[in-house]
Amino acid sequence: MSLNEFQSEWMPRFDDYLYSELDACVPAQENLHKAMAYSLMGGGKRIRPLLVLATLSLADGEITDGFAAAAALEYIHTYSLIHDDLPAMDNDDYRRGRLTLHKVFGESTAILAGDALLTAAFEILAESTAISADKKIKLIGLLAKASGPNGMIAGQMDDVEGEKKALTIEELKQVHEKKTGALIRYAVTAGCLVAEADEPFTTEMEEFSRHLGLAYQIHNDLKDVVLDEAETGKTIHHDAALNKNTYPSLLGVSGAIQELNSVIGQAEGCLDRVALSYSGAEDKIDVFRQLMDYVRI
Amino acid sequence: MSLNEFQSEWMPRFDDYLYSELDACVPAQENLHKAMAYSLMGGGKRIRPLLVLATLSLADGEITDGFAAAAALEYIHTYSLIHDDLPAMDNDDYRRGRLTLHKVFGESTAILAGDALLTAAFEILAESTAISADKKIKLIGLLAKASGPNGMIAGQMDDVEGEKKALTIEELKQVHEKKTGALIRYAVTAGCLVAEADEPFTTEMEEFSRHLGLAYQIHNDLKDVVLDEAETGKTIHHDAALNKNTYPSLLGVSGAIQELNSVIGQAEGCLDRVALSYSGAEDKIDVFRQLMDYVRI
Repeated sequence: MSLNEFQSEWMPRFDDYLYSELDACVPAQENLHKAMAYSLMGGGKRIRPLLVLATLSLADGEITDGFAAAAALEYIHTYSLIHDDLPAMDNDDYRRGRLTLHKVFGESTAILAGDALLTAAFEILAESTAISADKKIKLIGLLAKASGPNGMIAGQMDDVEGEKKALTIEELKQVHEKKTGALIRYAVTAGCLVAEADEPFTTEMEEFSRHLGLAYQIHNDLKDVVLDEAETGKTIHHDAALNKNTYPSLLGVSGAIQELNSVIGQAEGCLDRVALSYSGAEDKIDVFRQLMDYVRI
Repeated sequence: MSLNEFQSEWMPRFDDYLYSELDACVPAQENLHKAMAYSLMGGGKRIRPLLVLATLSLADGEITDGFAAAAALEYIHTYSLIHDDLPAMDNDDYRRGRLTLHKVFGESTAILAGDALLTAAFEILAESTAISADKKIKLIGLLAKASGPNGMIAGQMDDVEGEKKALTIEELKQVHEKKTGALIRYAVTAGCLVAEADEPFTTEMEEFSRHLGLAYQIHNDLKDVVLDEAETGKTIHHDAALNKNTYPSLLGVSGAIQELNSVIGQAEGCLDRVALSYSGAEDKIDVFRQLMDYVRI
């Protein structure tokens, strides 16, 4: 099955679930509902939910059993973008070509809608009827750890503090492991947990997710530099890129591309080993292989 | 047992637990830890955790079994104050005589510390070893509902929107039921749930908590007016009080005092019925009776 086929088959059904959970969580407060919906429907690529569901499929689990974990993850991801865009944080007016939430609904509503999505994520998991209490508790504990003060939020704090100083490449990796890597890893772990995958499979796929997360970040940094160059005609080493802690600024553009290719190679190695070790995996693993195309330069 | 005795015996132990959970959640990010600790140790009266533990005691449960629910509740309450104080929200520089978090640590850290406390609340409940997975899932679902977009956050949105228009007394009650009432009710529900209290007991104590929450709010509104009058010598019906949706502005001061006394009477009625119906309750219910002294004018 190709990535396109998997997306066409599952993502519209998942989106229906995502929005129905929104109606269940916020039946009464109209503007809060509107604000949460604005961000949830903001044209995100749903990479994290896709990873949950594709991992479940690869592990021969029931895909709909992962809807709650996938929706909770997308709620957490969405809240983190809303709060990141606030004037006191990155102060971004646009995201994915649309005005950011606080530009449309005001800052107080954006703060509250972010808080609401964060809280609703745990409600969705707790209320799911598809999985056992034991699994739900594990998923909730892991999600809180991945997104909380020792995971994503620690990475965001490191990032805020890191803006004032130069990081080494190892420090930069650690920031990203927490800031973006922890949620990507959670996607894969949640899929394995719901499907009751065995330990070697889970370990290999978590290793894959670490490489994917890192590749995603390097690709993102490179894209900014390359796009900027193409659009503005400035040299690559302009001030903004140099003063920020990014892979191109620390490794140079060709060094960063080399690093990206090396990381993609390691991710593909994980996929090869899974395809070899599990019967039936070869057919389903194309979804993951094609996902890697998103991060190639 | 008196309220003082209960507090002396249990609250220092509870505080130790609360801080040890903070160390467990945020081992590495120093400034995030400091910011969360600053607010958690901000001199709050710990009314909500006290309610959890006293309800557990009244229902003959193991008090330490309620520590996780009580700590999670205090984390949620604390995050809500941090975000409420932000410039985009109430823009308060002081709380309980100390500078608010964003005045000391900056706005971005305050946003992140609030998010971190909110997330850690669910981590604490999920990781608790004292209670079963079934109870934890119920506690997490109820906490998310009480504090989320259909509970506290809906009340905060209503409050933001209500500033622009005059509310009726019924509308004002509904705002407070969600904004402050939902978490107070959760405290009692959580205590009953952990102790496996029977349904009539739970219903009566939840009814009590509704009156307590309402009394607390009316008392708060009245205190502002009375204190203001005593301190400034202004008349009671000054502009700020008149333009806000408060009990004194809608009912007048004597009307609000009358309403407060009526609500206190109803709360005490609940306590009387519990004391009569459950052997051994009379001795322990003084904690609740004396708690009502906080809200008398």
